[in-house]
Amino acid sequence: MLVLHDNLGSGNGYKVRLLLSQLGRPFRRIEYDVTKGKTRTEEFLALNADGRIPLLQFPDGRVLAQSNAILFYLSQNTAYLPDDGFAQAEVLQWMFFEQYSHEPNIAVARYWLHFLDPSQVQQAQLEEKWQKGYQALDVMERRLSDRNFLVGDGYCIADIALYAYTHVADEAEMDLSPYPGIRRWLDRVAEQPGHVLITQEDFA
Amino acid sequence: MLVLHDNLGSGNGYKVRLLLSQLGRPFRRIEYDVTKGKTRTEEFLALNADGRIPLLQFPDGRVLAQSNAILFYLSQNTAYLPDDGFAQAEVLQWMFFEQYSHEPNIAVARYWLHFLDPSQVQQAQLEEKWQKGYQALDVMERRLSDRNFLVGDGYCIADIALYAYTHVADEAEMDLSPYPGIRRWLDRVAEQPGHVLITQEDFA
Repeated sequence: MLVLHDNLGSGNGYKVRLLLSQLGRPFRRIEYDVTKGKTRTEEFLALNADGRIPLLQFPDGRVLAQSNAILFYLSQNTAYLPDDGFAQAEVLQWMFFEQYSHEPNIAVARYWLHFLDPSQVQQAQLEEKWQKGYQALDVMERRLSDRNFLVGDGYCIADIALYAYTHVADEAEMDLSPYPGIRRWLDRVAEQPGHVLITQEDFA
Repeated sequence: MLVLHDNLGSGNGYKVRLLLSQLGRPFRRIEYDVTKGKTRTEEFLALNADGRIPLLQFPDGRVLAQSNAILFYLSQNTAYLPDDGFAQAEVLQWMFFEQYSHEPNIAVARYWLHFLDPSQVQQAQLEEKWQKGYQALDVMERRLSDRNFLVGDGYCIADIALYAYTHVADEAEMDLSPYPGIRRWLDRVAEQPGHVLITQEDFA
């Protein structure tokens, strides 16, 4: 069976849980407390030298890191990845945008405010994360103002990748009310068959 | 003809220049002075709402952003991308690692020290970039200590993506001498047929 090395609070882990659920693929979850450095042990570093979850482990022992690379692999030849080569590149464009401009700001602000002791957070650093996070949301809003999904006509892994941290932006104390296109899209993603919540723990 | 919206100093732009050259695909370069906000004009934002180069524009008007998504598109069905689905996912794993853990540290330190006025750089921020940049190099060294290229047996777009800023790490005042695996790999990449330098400006 597939083994997902994971953390329940992680949006990056959630991306993989969500797609595996929608594909109907059974998997076993191993939970790591990232606030206690549990992905930086020698044992874990032997699996992933980068010391991060999610990490997907296959029955033959192979492993794959980086949430968006895992989404790409699992979605090949399924309805969750377009067939067309240019559309696939657009999917990747949005996923690289997510890891470069969106996640490092929104996910990090959420981590500081929702999982660590907020009194330890430096206000100037938080302001910078919010500012850059809102810039990323501006780019998404421009894209989603007149279309249903990020790429082409249908729901795909680009939507999963951007949904993960956008739908919990309130936990980063960010306000989505000025983003009507994004809010409609969040509803559309949540209505997809097989959708699971970020808090769902068991996937028996 | 393909048009590459570009900046000569950018390693992200260089990735695309290098692959286009190795593929023998002619293209025209348009240079933007990113230090003067030339990718944040209304005209450019209409092409790419994210306001960043490189941006590849096709003869039919379509555009593609994000250097690594562009590499993926251009390399489909060529020797620069493995055929196998799992190997493709490993390529993407290294490219997401590059944009998340490598570029935001090494490229940003290089930008501050090499392109801006170094007296304006805050030492504490620079130290943090160096520390995280060396962590990324540690991960690469662990991978490259006993293999020739990042994925499989041959040179591919994962190598191009990581080469871009690693080979100019000295311009970020970072020292590669403790990384023998990386240094051998840099030589191997530079020896590939059709290699061009980051400073090459004309591609007639």
